[in-house]
Amino acid sequence: MIAQGTTALSKILDIDPQTGLIAGEAALRRTLSSMKGMFHNADAYRSMMEDRGDVRIYDFYDLGIPAKPTELAVGSSIVHPGRVGDEYFMTKGHFHEVLDAAEVYYCIAGQGCMLMESPEGDWEIREFLPGRAVYVPGRYAHRSINTSPDRPLITFFAFRGDAGHDYGTIEKKGFRKLVVEKDGKPAVVDNPNWR
Amino acid sequence: MIAQGTTALSKILDIDPQTGLIAGEAALRRTLSSMKGMFHNADAYRSMMEDRGDVRIYDFYDLGIPAKPTELAVGSSIVHPGRVGDEYFMTKGHFHEVLDAAEVYYCIAGQGCMLMESPEGDWEIREFLPGRAVYVPGRYAHRSINTSPDRPLITFFAFRGDAGHDYGTIEKKGFRKLVVEKDGKPAVVDNPNWR
Repeated sequence: MIAQGTTALSKILDIDPQTGLIAGEAALRRTLSSMKGMFHNADAYRSMMEDRGDVRIYDFYDLGIPAKPTELAVGSSIVHPGRVGDEYFMTKGHFHEVLDAAEVYYCIAGQGCMLMESPEGDWEIREFLPGRAVYVPGRYAHRSINTSPDRPLITFFAFRGDAGHDYGTIEKKGFRKLVVEKDGKPAVVDNPNWR
Repeated sequence: MIAQGTTALSKILDIDPQTGLIAGEAALRRTLSSMKGMFHNADAYRSMMEDRGDVRIYDFYDLGIPAKPTELAVGSSIVHPGRVGDEYFMTKGHFHEVLDAAEVYYCIAGQGCMLMESPEGDWEIREFLPGRAVYVPGRYAHRSINTSPDRPLITFFAFRGDAGHDYGTIEKKGFRKLVVEKDGKPAVVDNPNWR
Protein backbone atom coordinates (compact mmCIF):
# COMPACT_ATOMS: atom_id res chain seq x y z
CA MET A 1 0.00 0.00 0.00
CA ILE A 2 1.45 3.34 -1.01
CA ALA A 3 0.82 6.79 0.45
CA GLN A 4 -2.64 8.09 -0.34
CA GLY A 5 -4.85 10.96 0.62
CA THR A 6 -6.23 14.37 -0.17
CA THR A 7 -3.36 16.35 1.38
CA ALA A 8 0.38 15.88 1.80
CA LEU A 9 0.99 17.48 5.15
CA SER A 10 2.50 14.42 6.84
CA LYS A 11 6.15 13.56 6.32
CA ILE A 12 8.09 10.36 6.22
CA LEU A 13 11.72 9.92 7.23
CA ASP A 14 13.36 6.73 6.00
CA ILE A 15 16.38 6.22 8.23
CA ASP A 16 18.95 3.68 7.04
CA PRO A 17 19.67 1.46 10.06
CA GLN A 18 23.29 0.90 8.98
CA THR A 19 24.30 4.50 8.28
CA GLY A 20 21.60 6.56 10.03
CA LEU A 21 21.19 8.66 6.87
CA ILE A 22 17.71 9.83 5.82
CA ALA A 23 16.76 9.07 2.22
CA GLY A 24 16.40 12.19 0.09
CA GLU A 25 17.52 14.65 2.76
CA ALA A 26 20.81 16.52 3.09
CA ALA A 27 22.73 15.84 6.29
CA LEU A 28 24.51 18.62 8.16
CA ARG A 29 28.11 17.52 8.56
CA ARG A 30 30.39 18.44 11.44
CA THR A 31 34.06 17.80 10.80
CA LEU A 32 37.10 18.07 13.04
CA SER A 33 37.82 21.69 12.05
CA SER A 34 34.34 22.80 13.11
CA MET A 35 35.09 21.49 16.62
CA LYS A 36 38.43 23.21 17.19
CA GLY A 37 38.90 23.83 20.90
CA MET A 38 36.15 21.42 21.96
CA PHE A 39 38.34 18.33 22.56
CA HIS A 40 40.46 18.72 25.67
CA ASN A 41 43.78 17.60 24.17
CA ALA A 42 44.93 20.32 21.74
CA ASP A 43 48.05 18.37 20.73
CA ALA A 44 46.01 15.31 19.83
CA TYR A 45 43.65 17.55 17.86
CA ARG A 46 46.55 19.04 15.85
CA SER A 47 48.10 15.62 15.22
CA MET A 48 44.83 14.20 13.97
CA MET A 49 44.28 17.16 11.67
CA GLU A 50 47.80 16.68 10.23
CA ASP A 51 47.62 12.88 9.94
CA ARG A 52 44.02 12.27 8.92
CA GLY A 53 42.77 15.66 7.78
CA ASP A 54 39.40 17.21 8.46
CA VAL A 55 37.60 13.98 9.33
CA ARG A 56 33.87 13.78 9.86
CA ILE A 57 32.85 13.69 13.51
CA TYR A 58 29.05 13.66 13.28
CA ASP A 59 26.08 14.23 11.00
CA PHE A 60 22.57 15.32 11.81
CA TYR A 61 19.48 16.73 10.15
CA ASP A 62 17.48 19.90 10.19
CA LEU A 63 14.43 19.08 8.08
CA GLY A 64 13.13 22.63 8.08
CA ILE A 65 10.04 21.92 10.14
CA PRO A 66 8.55 25.29 11.14
CA ALA A 67 9.93 26.66 14.44
CA LYS A 68 6.51 26.63 16.11
CA PRO A 69 5.58 25.32 19.56
CA THR A 70 3.01 22.94 18.04
CA GLU A 71 5.54 21.31 15.68
CA LEU A 72 8.34 18.85 16.46
CA ALA A 73 11.88 19.07 15.14
CA VAL A 74 12.81 15.48 14.29
CA GLY A 75 15.65 13.68 12.56
CA SER A 76 18.58 11.37 13.01
CA SER A 77 22.00 11.98 14.50
CA ILE A 78 25.07 9.95 13.55
CA VAL A 79 28.23 10.20 15.67
CA HIS A 80 31.09 8.44 13.93
CA PRO A 81 33.52 6.19 15.83
CA GLY A 82 36.89 7.55 16.85
CA ARG A 83 38.84 9.50 19.45
CA VAL A 84 40.86 12.69 19.64
CA GLY A 85 43.56 11.48 22.03
CA ASP A 86 41.64 9.72 24.78
CA GLU A 87 38.39 11.62 24.14
CA TYR A 88 35.64 9.93 22.16
CA PHE A 89 34.05 11.53 19.12
CA MET A 90 30.98 13.47 20.20
CA THR A 91 28.54 16.18 19.19
CA LYS A 92 29.16 19.80 20.12
CA GLY A 93 26.26 19.63 22.52
CA HIS A 94 23.75 22.37 23.09
CA PHE A 95 21.22 23.97 25.37
CA HIS A 96 17.84 24.83 23.89
CA GLU A 97 17.09 28.51 23.37
CA VAL A 98 13.78 27.68 25.06
CA LEU A 99 15.86 26.45 27.98
CA ASP A 100 13.03 24.46 29.57
CA ALA A 101 12.30 22.37 26.45
CA ALA A 102 12.97 18.64 26.84
CA GLU A 103 14.28 16.38 24.06
CA VAL A 104 14.14 12.64 23.47
CA TYR A 105 16.68 10.42 21.67
CA TYR A 106 15.85 6.86 20.65
CA CYS A 107 18.99 4.79 19.99
CA ILE A 108 18.71 2.88 16.70
CA ALA A 109 22.23 1.42 16.62
CA GLY A 110 25.64 1.66 18.23
CA GLN A 111 26.77 2.35 21.76
CA GLY A 112 27.68 5.43 23.69
CA CYS A 113 26.19 7.85 26.12
CA MET A 114 24.35 11.10 26.59
CA LEU A 115 26.16 13.68 28.74
CA MET A 116 23.85 16.28 30.28
CA GLU A 117 24.55 19.38 32.35
CA SER A 118 22.45 22.19 33.81
CA PRO A 119 23.56 25.84 33.99
CA GLU A 120 24.03 25.35 37.76
CA GLY A 121 26.47 22.48 37.20
CA ASP A 122 24.26 19.50 37.92
CA TRP A 123 25.09 16.72 35.48
CA GLU A 124 24.00 13.28 34.36
CA ILE A 125 25.24 10.54 32.07
CA ARG A 126 23.04 7.84 30.54
CA GLU A 127 24.22 4.99 28.40
CA PHE A 128 22.93 4.51 24.86
CA LEU A 129 22.08 0.98 23.70
CA PRO A 130 20.01 -0.05 20.69
CA GLY A 131 16.33 0.10 21.68
CA ARG A 132 16.86 2.56 24.51
CA ALA A 133 15.37 6.04 24.53
CA VAL A 134 16.98 8.73 26.69
CA TYR A 135 14.72 11.58 27.81
CA VAL A 136 16.75 14.74 28.30
CA PRO A 137 15.07 17.01 30.84
CA GLY A 138 14.54 20.71 30.19
CA ARG A 139 17.39 23.05 31.20
CA TYR A 140 20.06 20.40 30.50
CA ALA A 141 22.67 20.86 27.78
CA HIS A 142 23.26 17.52 26.09
CA ARG A 143 25.97 15.89 24.02
CA SER A 144 25.96 12.45 22.35
CA ILE A 145 29.22 10.51 22.68
CA ASN A 146 30.16 7.40 20.68
CA THR A 147 32.17 4.91 22.75
CA SER A 148 32.29 2.17 20.10
CA PRO A 149 35.67 1.58 18.44
CA ASP A 150 34.18 0.91 15.03
CA ARG A 151 30.45 1.54 14.67
CA PRO A 152 28.41 4.74 14.36
CA LEU A 153 26.08 5.82 17.16
CA ILE A 154 22.71 6.37 15.49
CA THR A 155 19.81 8.05 17.27
CA PHE A 156 16.39 9.40 16.32
CA PHE A 157 15.57 12.69 18.06
CA ALA A 158 12.47 14.81 18.67
CA PHE A 159 11.98 18.15 20.41
CA ARG A 160 9.55 21.04 20.31
CA GLY A 161 9.73 22.88 17.02
CA ASP A 162 10.54 26.28 18.50
CA ALA A 163 13.08 25.10 21.11
CA GLY A 164 16.09 26.12 19.00
CA HIS A 165 19.77 25.46 19.68
CA ASP A 166 22.16 27.44 21.87
CA TYR A 167 25.60 26.12 20.88
CA GLY A 168 27.54 29.20 22.01
CA THR A 169 27.49 28.54 25.73
CA ILE A 170 29.09 25.11 25.37
CA GLU A 171 31.53 26.29 22.67
CA LYS A 172 32.77 28.95 25.12
CA LYS A 173 32.65 27.08 28.42
CA GLY A 174 32.64 23.38 27.56
CA PHE A 175 30.97 20.71 29.66
CA ARG A 176 32.23 20.23 33.22
CA LYS A 177 32.72 16.52 32.53
CA LEU A 178 34.37 14.60 29.69
CA VAL A 179 34.07 10.99 28.61
CA VAL A 180 37.45 9.47 27.80
CA GLU A 181 38.91 6.03 27.24
CA LYS A 182 40.81 4.85 30.31
CA ASP A 183 42.21 1.33 30.70
CA GLY A 184 40.32 0.35 27.56
CA LYS A 185 36.89 1.51 28.67
CA PRO A 186 34.84 4.71 28.97
CA ALA A 187 35.39 6.83 32.06
CA VAL A 188 33.96 10.16 33.22
CA VAL A 189 36.55 12.74 34.23
CA ASP A 190 36.58 16.44 35.07
CA ASN A 191 37.23 18.72 32.11
CA PRO A 192 40.55 20.44 32.78
CA ASN A 193 39.63 23.22 30.34
CA TRP A 194 36.20 24.03 31.73
CA ARG A 195 35.74 27.74 32.41
CA MET B 1 29.56 2.66 31.91
CA ILE B 2 26.52 3.01 34.12
CA ALA B 3 24.31 6.03 34.75
CA GLN B 4 26.05 8.67 36.83
CA GLY B 5 25.46 12.22 37.92
CA THR B 6 24.28 14.61 40.59
CA THR B 7 20.59 14.49 39.64
CA ALA B 8 18.18 11.91 38.26
CA LEU B 9 15.92 14.04 36.10
CA SER B 10 16.57 12.20 32.84
CA LYS B 11 14.69 9.01 32.05
CA ILE B 12 15.52 5.90 30.11
CA LEU B 13 13.05 3.71 28.23
CA ASP B 14 14.32 0.26 27.33
CA ILE B 15 12.05 -0.95 24.55
CA ASP B 16 12.21 -4.65 23.72
CA PRO B 17 12.54 -4.83 19.92
CA GLN B 18 10.62 -8.13 19.76
CA THR B 19 7.63 -7.21 21.91
CA GLY B 20 7.75 -3.41 22.07
CA LEU B 21 7.31 -3.56 25.86
CA ILE B 22 9.19 -1.09 28.07
CA ALA B 23 11.16 -2.65 30.93
CA GLY B 24 9.78 -1.80 34.36
CA GLU B 25 6.75 0.13 33.09
CA ALA B 26 3.09 -0.93 33.02
CA ALA B 27 1.50 -1.00 29.58
CA LEU B 28 -2.03 0.24 29.02
CA ARG B 29 -3.92 -2.60 27.36
CA ARG B 30 -6.76 -2.20 24.90
CA THR B 31 -8.77 -5.36 24.31
CA LEU B 32 -11.60 -6.14 21.90
CA SER B 33 -14.32 -5.16 24.38
CA SER B 34 -12.85 -1.68 24.79
CA MET B 35 -13.26 -1.16 21.03
CA LYS B 36 -16.90 -2.18 20.70
CA GLY B 37 -18.45 -0.33 17.77
CA MET B 38 -15.13 0.76 16.29
CA PHE B 39 -14.73 -2.08 13.78
CA HIS B 40 -17.15 -1.77 10.90
CA ASN B 41 -18.40 -5.38 10.88
CA ALA B 42 -20.52 -5.88 14.01
CA ASP B 43 -21.18 -9.57 13.21
CA ALA B 44 -17.47 -10.29 12.89
CA TYR B 45 -16.90 -8.47 16.18
CA ARG B 46 -19.50 -10.63 17.96
CA SER B 47 -18.12 -13.85 16.45
CA MET B 48 -14.60 -13.00 17.52
CA MET B 49 -15.72 -12.18 21.04
CA GLU B 50 -17.53 -15.54 21.23
CA ASP B 51 -14.78 -17.61 19.63
CA ARG B 52 -11.61 -16.01 20.96
CA GLY B 53 -12.76 -13.90 23.86
CA ASP B 54 -11.61 -10.45 24.82
CA VAL B 55 -8.34 -10.54 22.87
CA ARG B 56 -5.71 -7.88 23.15
CA ILE B 57 -5.75 -5.41 20.26
CA TYR B 58 -3.00 -2.97 21.25
CA ASP B 59 -0.80 -1.80 24.10
CA PHE B 60 0.75 1.59 24.74
CA TYR B 61 2.35 3.61 27.50
CA ASP B 62 1.59 6.70 29.49
CA LEU B 63 4.75 7.26 31.52
CA GLY B 64 3.27 10.08 33.56
CA ILE B 65 5.47 12.80 32.15
CA PRO B 66 4.01 16.14 33.32
CA ALA B 67 1.40 17.61 30.94
CA LYS B 68 3.46 20.72 30.27
CA PRO B 69 4.25 22.36 26.92
CA THR B 70 8.00 22.05 27.58
CA GLU B 71 7.83 18.28 28.19
CA LEU B 72 7.35 15.44 25.70
CA ALA B 73 5.01 12.51 26.14
CA VAL B 74 6.97 9.50 24.86
CA GLY B 75 6.57 5.75 24.80
CA SER B 76 5.98 2.74 22.63
CA SER B 77 2.82 1.49 20.93
CA ILE B 78 2.25 -2.15 20.03
CA VAL B 79 -0.60 -3.10 17.69
CA HIS B 80 -1.05 -6.87 17.65
CA PRO B 81 -1.64 -8.78 14.42
CA GLY B 82 -5.16 -9.82 13.51
CA ARG B 83 -8.41 -8.78 11.89
CA VAL B 84 -12.04 -8.33 12.86
CA GLY B 85 -13.63 -9.61 9.68
CA ASP B 86 -11.69 -7.90 6.90
CA GLU B 87 -10.54 -4.99 9.08
CA TYR B 88 -7.05 -5.04 10.50
CA PHE B 89 -6.35 -4.60 14.21
CA MET B 90 -5.75 -0.94 14.93
CA THR B 91 -5.63 1.68 17.65
CA LYS B 92 -8.73 3.69 18.54
CA GLY B 93 -7.09 6.77 17.09
CA HIS B 94 -7.31 10.24 18.54
CA PHE B 95 -7.12 13.95 17.96
CA HIS B 96 -4.99 15.97 20.36
CA GLU B 97 -6.83 18.21 22.80
CA VAL B 98 -4.31 20.84 21.69
CA LEU B 99 -5.58 20.23 18.17
CA ASP B 100 -2.58 21.85 16.46
CA ALA B 101 0.01 19.64 18.20
CA ALA B 102 1.98 17.37 15.87
CA GLU B 103 3.19 13.86 16.79
CA VAL B 104 5.95 11.64 15.45
CA TYR B 105 6.06 7.82 15.30
CA TYR B 106 9.27 5.93 14.56
CA CYS B 107 8.61 2.36 13.39
CA ILE B 108 10.81 -0.12 15.26
CA ALA B 109 9.34 -3.34 13.84
CA GLY B 110 6.44 -4.73 11.86
CA GLN B 111 4.39 -3.36 9.00
CA GLY B 112 1.26 -1.33 8.72
CA CYS B 113 0.14 2.20 8.21
CA MET B 114 -0.87 5.44 9.84
CA LEU B 115 -4.35 6.69 8.93
CA MET B 116 -4.83 10.43 9.43
CA GLU B 117 -7.88 12.68 9.08
CA SER B 118 -8.62 16.35 9.71
CA PRO B 119 -11.90 17.69 11.13
CA GLU B 120 -12.72 18.98 7.62
CA GLY B 121 -12.39 15.48 6.13
CA ASP B 122 -8.96 15.70 4.53
CA TRP B 123 -7.14 12.43 5.01
CA GLU B 124 -3.78 10.74 4.47
CA ILE B 125 -2.31 7.28 4.77
CA ARG B 126 1.40 6.54 5.18
CA GLU B 127 2.96 3.11 5.30
CA PHE B 128 4.97 1.97 8.32
CA LEU B 129 8.19 0.05 7.71
CA PRO B 130 11.01 -0.60 10.18
CA GLY B 131 13.29 2.45 10.23
CA ARG B 132 10.62 4.85 8.95
CA ALA B 133 9.31 7.75 11.00
CA VAL B 134 5.88 9.20 10.18
CA TYR B 135 5.30 12.83 11.14
CA VAL B 136 1.63 13.41 11.89
CA PRO B 137 0.73 17.05 11.25
CA GLY B 138 -1.25 19.09 13.74
CA ARG B 139 -5.05 18.95 13.44
CA TYR B 140 -5.00 15.34 12.14
CA ALA B 141 -6.56 12.48 14.07
CA HIS B 142 -4.33 9.43 13.70
CA ARG B 143 -4.69 5.67 14.01
CA SER B 144 -1.98 2.98 13.71
CA ILE B 145 -3.03 -0.11 11.75
CA ASN B 146 -1.17 -3.44 11.68
CA THR B 147 -1.34 -5.12 8.26
CA SER B 148 1.01 -8.01 9.10
CA PRO B 149 -0.60 -11.45 9.46
CA ASP B 150 1.64 -12.49 12.31
CA ARG B 151 3.91 -9.81 13.76
CA PRO B 152 3.24 -6.84 16.05
CA LEU B 153 3.55 -3.29 14.74
CA ILE B 154 5.90 -1.54 17.15
CA THR B 155 6.41 2.22 17.12
CA PHE B 156 8.11 4.80 19.35
CA PHE B 157 6.08 7.99 19.70
CA ALA B 158 6.69 11.55 20.93
CA PHE B 159 4.40 14.56 21.24
CA ARG B 160 4.19 17.73 23.29
CA GLY B 161 3.54 16.96 26.94
CA ASP B 162 0.35 19.00 27.20
CA ALA B 163 -1.21 17.94 23.88
CA GLY B 164 -3.56 15.41 25.50
CA HIS B 165 -5.86 12.91 23.80
CA ASP B 166 -9.34 13.45 22.42
CA TYR B 167 -10.65 9.91 21.84
CA GLY B 168 -14.34 10.83 22.00
CA THR B 169 -14.68 12.38 18.56
CA ILE B 170 -13.40 9.24 16.80
CA GLU B 171 -15.34 6.89 19.12
CA LYS B 172 -18.54 8.72 18.12
CA LYS B 173 -17.90 9.43 14.46
CA GLY B 174 -15.21 6.98 13.34
CA PHE B 175 -12.70 7.71 10.60
CA ARG B 176 -14.03 8.38 7.10
CA LYS B 177 -11.70 5.69 5.72
CA LEU B 178 -10.95 2.12 6.78
CA VAL B 179 -8.04 -0.18 5.97
CA VAL B 180 -9.24 -3.69 5.15
CA GLU B 181 -7.81 -6.84 3.59
CA LYS B 182 -9.02 -7.23 0.01
CA ASP B 183 -7.70 -9.91 -2.38
CA GLY B 184 -5.04 -10.73 0.20
CA LYS B 185 -3.65 -7.22 0.56
CA PRO B 186 -4.44 -3.96 2.38
CA ALA B 187 -6.93 -1.62 0.72
CA VAL B 188 -8.43 1.73 1.70
CA VAL B 189 -12.22 1.88 1.57
CA ASP B 190 -14.92 4.29 2.70
CA ASN B 191 -16.28 3.63 6.19
CA PRO B 192 -19.94 2.65 5.76
CA ASN B 193 -20.63 3.54 9.40
CA TRP B 194 -19.07 7.00 9.38
CA ARG B 195 -21.38 9.68 10.76
